[in-house]
Amino acid sequence: MVESHTRRVLVLNGPNLNLLGTREPGVYGSATLADIQAMVEKRAAELGLSVIFRQSNHEGQLIDWLHEARETCTGVIFNPGAYTHTSVALYDAIKAIALPVIEVHLSNPHAREPFRHRSFVSPVAKGVIQGFGPLGYILALEAAAQF
Amino acid sequence: MVESHTRRVLVLNGPNLNLLGTREPGVYGSATLADIQAMVEKRAAELGLSVIFRQSNHEGQLIDWLHEARETCTGVIFNPGAYTHTSVALYDAIKAIALPVIEVHLSNPHAREPFRHRSFVSPVAKGVIQGFGPLGYILALEAAAQF
Amino acid sequence: MVESHTRRVLVLNGPNLNLLGTREPGVYGSATLADIQAMVEKRAAELGLSVIFRQSNHEGQLIDWLHEARETCTGVIFNPGAYTHTSVALYDAIKAIALPVIEVHLSNPHAREPFRHRSFVSPVAKGVIQGFGPLGYILALEAAAQF
Amino acid sequence: MVESHTRRVLVLNGPNLNLLGTREPGVYGSATLADIQAMVEKRAAELGLSVIFRQSNHEGQLIDWLHEARETCTGVIFNPGAYTHTSVALYDAIKAIALPVIEVHLSNPHAREPFRHRSFVSPVAKGVIQGFGPLGYILALEAAAQF
Amino acid sequence: MVESHTRRVLVLNGPNLNLLGTREPGVYGSATLADIQAMVEKRAAELGLSVIFRQSNHEGQLIDWLHEARETCTGVIFNPGAYTHTSVALYDAIKAIALPVIEVHLSNPHAREPFRHRSFVSPVAKGVIQGFGPLGYILALEAAAQF
Amino acid sequence: MVESHTRRVLVLNGPNLNLLGTREPGVYGSATLADIQAMVEKRAAELGLSVIFRQSNHEGQLIDWLHEARETCTGVIFNPGAYTHTSVALYDAIKAIALPVIEVHLSNPHAREPFRHRSFVSPVAKGVIQGFGPLGYILALEAAAQF
Amino acid sequence: MVESHTRRVLVLNGPNLNLLGTREPGVYGSATLADIQAMVEKRAAELGLSVIFRQSNHEGQLIDWLHEARETCTGVIFNPGAYTHTSVALYDAIKAIALPVIEVHLSNPHAREPFRHRSFVSPVAKGVIQGFGPLGYILALEAAAQF
Amino acid sequence: MVESHTRRVLVLNGPNLNLLGTREPGVYGSATLADIQAMVEKRAAELGLSVIFRQSNHEGQLIDWLHEARETCTGVIFNPGAYTHTSVALYDAIKAIALPVIEVHLSNPHAREPFRHRSFVSPVAKGVIQGFGPLGYILALEAAAQF
Amino acid sequence: MVESHTRRVLVLNGPNLNLLGTREPGVYGSATLADIQAMVEKRAAELGLSVIFRQSNHEGQLIDWLHEARETCTGVIFNPGAYTHTSVALYDAIKAIALPVIEVHLSNPHAREPFRHRSFVSPVAKGVIQGFGPLGYILALEAAAQF
Amino acid sequence: MVESHTRRVLVLNGPNLNLLGTREPGVYGSATLADIQAMVEKRAAELGLSVIFRQSNHEGQLIDWLHEARETCTGVIFNPGAYTHTSVALYDAIKAIALPVIEVHLSNPHAREPFRHRSFVSPVAKGVIQGFGPLGYILALEAAAQF
Amino acid sequence: MVESHTRRVLVLNGPNLNLLGTREPGVYGSATLADIQAMVEKRAAELGLSVIFRQSNHEGQLIDWLHEARETCTGVIFNPGAYTHTSVALYDAIKAIALPVIEVHLSNPHAREPFRHRSFVSPVAKGVIQGFGPLGYILALEAAAQF
Amino acid sequence: MVESHTRRVLVLNGPNLNLLGTREPGVYGSATLADIQAMVEKRAAELGLSVIFRQSNHEGQLIDWLHEARETCTGVIFNPGAYTHTSVALYDAIKAIALPVIEVHLSNPHAREPFRHRSFVSPVAKGVIQGFGPLGYILALEAAAQF
Repeated sequence: MVESHTRRVLVLNGPNLNLLGTREPGVYGSATLADIQAMVEKRAAELGLSVIFRQSNHEGQLIDWLHEARETCTGVIFNPGAYTHTSVALYDAIKAIALPVIEVHLSNPHAREPFRHRSFVSPVAKGVIQGFGPLGYILALEAAAQF
Repeated sequence: MVESHTRRVLVLNGPNLNLLGTREPGVYGSATLADIQAMVEKRAAELGLSVIFRQSNHEGQLIDWLHEARETCTGVIFNPGAYTHTSVALYDAIKAIALPVIEVHLSNPHAREPFRHRSFVSPVAKGVIQGFGPLGYILALEAAAQF
Repeated sequence: MVESHTRRVLVLNGPNLNLLGTREPGVYGSATLADIQAMVEKRAAELGLSVIFRQSNHEGQLIDWLHEARETCTGVIFNPGAYTHTSVALYDAIKAIALPVIEVHLSNPHAREPFRHRSFVSPVAKGVIQGFGPLGYILALEAAAQF
Repeated sequence: MVESHTRRVLVLNGPNLNLLGTREPGVYGSATLADIQAMVEKRAAELGLSVIFRQSNHEGQLIDWLHEARETCTGVIFNPGAYTHTSVALYDAIKAIALPVIEVHLSNPHAREPFRHRSFVSPVAKGVIQGFGPLGYILALEAAAQF
Repeated sequence: MVESHTRRVLVLNGPNLNLLGTREPGVYGSATLADIQAMVEKRAAELGLSVIFRQSNHEGQLIDWLHEARETCTGVIFNPGAYTHTSVALYDAIKAIALPVIEVHLSNPHAREPFRHRSFVSPVAKGVIQGFGPLGYILALEAAAQF
Repeated sequence: MVESHTRRVLVLNGPNLNLLGTREPGVYGSATLADIQAMVEKRAAELGLSVIFRQSNHEGQLIDWLHEARETCTGVIFNPGAYTHTSVALYDAIKAIALPVIEVHLSNPHAREPFRHRSFVSPVAKGVIQGFGPLGYILALEAAAQF
Repeated sequence: MVESHTRRVLVLNGPNLNLLGTREPGVYGSATLADIQAMVEKRAAELGLSVIFRQSNHEGQLIDWLHEARETCTGVIFNPGAYTHTSVALYDAIKAIALPVIEVHLSNPHAREPFRHRSFVSPVAKGVIQGFGPLGYILALEAAAQF
Repeated sequence: MVESHTRRVLVLNGPNLNLLGTREPGVYGSATLADIQAMVEKRAAELGLSVIFRQSNHEGQLIDWLHEARETCTGVIFNPGAYTHTSVALYDAIKAIALPVIEVHLSNPHAREPFRHRSFVSPVAKGVIQGFGPLGYILALEAAAQF
Repeated sequence: MVESHTRRVLVLNGPNLNLLGTREPGVYGSATLADIQAMVEKRAAELGLSVIFRQSNHEGQLIDWLHEARETCTGVIFNPGAYTHTSVALYDAIKAIALPVIEVHLSNPHAREPFRHRSFVSPVAKGVIQGFGPLGYILALEAAAQF
Repeated sequence: MVESHTRRVLVLNGPNLNLLGTREPGVYGSATLADIQAMVEKRAAELGLSVIFRQSNHEGQLIDWLHEARETCTGVIFNPGAYTHTSVALYDAIKAIALPVIEVHLSNPHAREPFRHRSFVSPVAKGVIQGFGPLGYILALEAAAQF
Repeated sequence: MVESHTRRVLVLNGPNLNLLGTREPGVYGSATLADIQAMVEKRAAELGLSVIFRQSNHEGQLIDWLHEARETCTGVIFNPGAYTHTSVALYDAIKAIALPVIEVHLSNPHAREPFRHRSFVSPVAKGVIQGFGPLGYILALEAAAQF
Repeated sequence: MVESHTRRVLVLNGPNLNLLGTREPGVYGSATLADIQAMVEKRAAELGLSVIFRQSNHEGQLIDWLHEARETCTGVIFNPGAYTHTSVALYDAIKAIALPVIEVHLSNPHAREPFRHRSFVSPVAKGVIQGFGPLGYILALEAAAQF
């Protein structure tokens, strides 16, 4: 599965993000995940980065992919969706792989329900970008290009 | 996987419910999940409803099936088991699909351990039925027949 | 006050339910309590049950009626309204009478203010049905018919 | 998958333990999970026990294997990793199977982050051993040999 | 019980206020409830308002009178006494009747015991006046005269 | 209602105590409230005290009787039942009347549910006696005889 | 800065109140602070009071003005805006000057975000008036005229 | 140390009670511990009880004496002083000896500092008597005479 | 103070940021605030944006500048420093001005002391960028260029 | 008191453990502390370890013995009983002596009362073993033999 | 503003301390801030220290002066008044300047309101002295003379 | 044990302070308790004070010595060590003896673990000095010399 590019970024998407564009457009906007993937791949190419773009609703699958990235990627852009708020296992996985991880959220969790105010990913993330919609992925790419 | 019936209900069962009948019968009763499936299918037929009956111990799998139901079902009866109390991802999944979801519990969580007093499913459920044992599924079906 | 039917259910309604139909119809619907009483009595007759239907804004009165039911009824369907969240005395009353009590709420308390998330009735109820509007009373009757 | 030994122990390992030896050696030591498996199998043979040794990053998979053990094993040694602190589903799974479960942690969770101070496994475990590194598995085996 | 005045205000007093003047004068002053009623009626007349002045120690009675006011009054001045801090039922009653309610306290609850710092009436009151002794009722009347 | 005895004690009983003897005898014993009244009246006579013995399920009624006692009695023995834990209004009523109040509980609230661990009556009671069953009333009488 | 009137009231306004009329009119109304100043000065003149009307976004400035008032005014009407909820320094300042302070809020803080439910000013205020919009200042003036 | 009386009660006093009579008389009264011992021994003799009366400031000593009482006494009257609020070890000691223990406090802890509101002794005490000053010991003796 | 560029961004810096480069370089890096200003102005020019760059240790001054920006700028990039965690007044100021505000932090507050985990700015910010050091300002500029 | 063996382990037992075998056998089993001492000494001899075995109900005595062990022992096996949950002084004592301490509990504290869920010993222990009854001491010895 | 003395101490006083001597003399004593300044300057001269003595009610001003001290002083004696309990910005300022800071309070905050029990200054102070009135400044000087 | 000096100070040291100099020198410094005793006695002689210097690991012993001091000393300097954070009995003992008590800590508890942030001694201490190492005892002596 490992390709020959020198710098590769895993763009990882958590639960329910496969429904983007149809799910609560007032909160998440009308772009689909495929739209975002296209935007990301286009901008990555301009920045000389390779991208692996994935989504899963399974916490264990997300952990498996993070582990894999340890040997195949130089950084991770991660929108952990709802697992942000509940997963100690993702916290551990990010600490276990020695890669910079940028946490991205389309909406601003602090303007939403109280249970979205705690992130288990933020304390182990290199940086956090939230509230910019799909643009957040592009900003994260630009940051990743600097590592 | 989509059949041609006009009105179809996904009956979804969460972790450990596959052990029903053998697991702590004092709390959960002696009916097995297969017994419940038979009861549900019989009553659904009387009510003119089609039923898809599923169980998984995997949170991600439950989310996948909820997403699927968005296009194939008109409603969901959901016993989320222990994920009731911890899963923000299921909360998000239910909001993301635009279907009425009825939360069912065999026992009464409020008469049990404190960590069962919080439900992430209740705030996004159409209604909640708990404490009636297998009868709860039948009551939920009757409610679903009215939507 | 005791009639001769073999199986009788007390349907007890707590504070402010007398204003149903006029009070916040967005939350509670447009049916009046009299409409619900009519529905309940009709369905009870079909199920061979007798019904005593009462409402009071007085916590003490509700306790008195629960005590009375101990000798005159075989079960209780109870919508305790706001006393759900504050009344240890109702908790004690339900434990003191040895009858199955089904707690019903028109709306879904878990989707409302935090102070509605605690119920003193649920831990001592046989079962709980909430969020189905007036249909919840009918579902409760069907459950009561099985005891 | 069931072998013919009379006494068999499932040694179950949760998320991120596959990275042992590489992940934060200051906290978890330099032994790999394969090293631990070898140690465990050697000591088990001396004690006349058979061992099934497994690891998964998927909470649902861990539940599935616990269920399986109900019919194939006489006890479980379980290092639940990060799911220790968040999984009501594992709590339920352990109660549902009627086997003694010994909870093992390589490090001492109480000397770490506050969110590691709560265990959903401890209340339903037969016993708990933590802080001894790989030796903890061997101590657990000796305890299991007595059941 | 309904009189013919065009604008009528219910002035409602909760538990223990019947003892005013004798009860802890250091906290509540020496005016009796009858003194306050006289002051209120005098000032109301000057403002062209009619007043219904009531007191009860019964939470249910206070709810009944609030319901009644829905059809007979244009506003309510309410000193809920100790029920301020415990009654979800009064919260619901005020929301249920579509009248402006002004909450009045003789003393300043925030300068007293911690359990007086929470008010279930304030969130649904039009306005709150506290700490001015009997003058608070007069200020409330002047506000009510503007609605 | 006032008799001519020089020293009179109000013995006041709160919600659900009318069911004593039938209600959860494992917790509350088999003596009825009438049995207790007889014991109390007999011992009071020996101590030269007059007794007014009352029970109500209505919080407002209990407050009314406490107010009345201010002019007719020299002390109060009060088993507030479940209102112990929720009634700020009783706290205020006891402060408002200038009589010594002895709080009595048949069982020991601290050995029961957490919501029974808080008493709004204890901070304003002269003394508290709990856990001795009906004997507690007799001990309270002996204390009252000393005031 | 001190004028010769015998009775003078400092009307003090905290952070962001300079934007009144433009800021969230749904919450705060359309009157500007200048409008309120005009209303206040007009009504004060009728009541024979002199008014010093000030606004600052600086907590330290508000403290300085409170100190100044100690020697130049007979009372204070204070809308502390957001500092209400966070400023122990204002609490201390009000205790330090021996003047009656009336706390005024245009909106009802208890109907808004939880962090607005705590006031550091209320425990040391003579009285509190909230929720009446600009009318609250007038009511406060009338109260101040009585001191 | 064991005498030949058939029924013997250990009257055990915790830290700082040796200073009674001199320590904060406004809270604890002017009777010394020796006065109380004399009262208790006199009343015990009337009731046909033998008394062992002890005081220590050492938690461990109190535990040792409770253990001793297991073989020499038929009941314990225990004023645990400040250890009431902090000692899990006394909780365990009382459970470990199979004797009825009556908890006594001279003052009413619930009317004092919040850290006095929790008792580790109450949940395992047979009964609790507090707020009656030295009379509380006499009431406890009368109760002990009935066991 | 207003220049003639069509699109202008206020870049606002809170307390202690004037010491950047000397203050805890392990946490905040070695770039000074002047270095950051230079970087920001250079990148802004490339993006066709005008920048007003300010710093103050005074909460009130920050509020004053936010108010000013309402008429002179099209957006704000705001590093509120320690006021992030305590200032309801800044929360109100941001709501009061109708401009998009991007919250920037050099370090990642969630990886630091618990009192840095709450932000009063995040709930009213358009977006949040944290943990990227000075690069965070550049990313914020790129986002601001899109509004 | 110091013997000449090269490796010596202090086995230290806290409050109420002297009653083992008689105290709540359902929780703690029927072995006495003397039985455990015999088991421990036998197994220690096999492992070539010397043992000092002590018990006290006095927190200060336990601290004194821990201090002594600093110069006479190579490790400590410590069952702190109830002091586990309340003693900061033991936490400090363990940090002060530079010896590995293994915390042992006969029962599983996490399956018992909430106040047993916090351990002041665990954060400074080398390892923790709980729930195995007397076997826990043996497992601890085996671990100690490896240090 | 920088003088030529070799060792200089900034003595910094926070909000409301300018009112010392007049403000609540029961709590703060009758010495004015000028009296304290005189005492401090006299004792400093004896100890060979130079003193800069300042007071402000403005949090930002206090921060500015702390920053200034970084280059002009060798230590700080700081009575932060009410900002002690609320100011993360002062916490940051003290960490940012590399000077020893001694926190002084005239009264004992732990004997006062609960909101005075938390200090944001203590965790970053070299030492803390509280409750000694003006003498505390002198003790702090003596400590500062040793750095 | 009482000597004839007119002014005598008890210098009392709590648990684990006997290990000073060897215990965590990074936190507590390298001076032994004997070193501190020598320093204290030397400075006391200069100040004309007599000193009784004691240490115990036993809470009860510390209480006994405090009681003794009531008759033999004019003040107490008390480093309660870990009992600071847990002992209500010491709180009571200090209130019971009518002597000024100065609380001293070598390190700064507020810069350490959260459970060291609460002091039961501070609310009843005359003053508190912490974080200055052995110098703190000398500062306390100087304060004591003024009483």
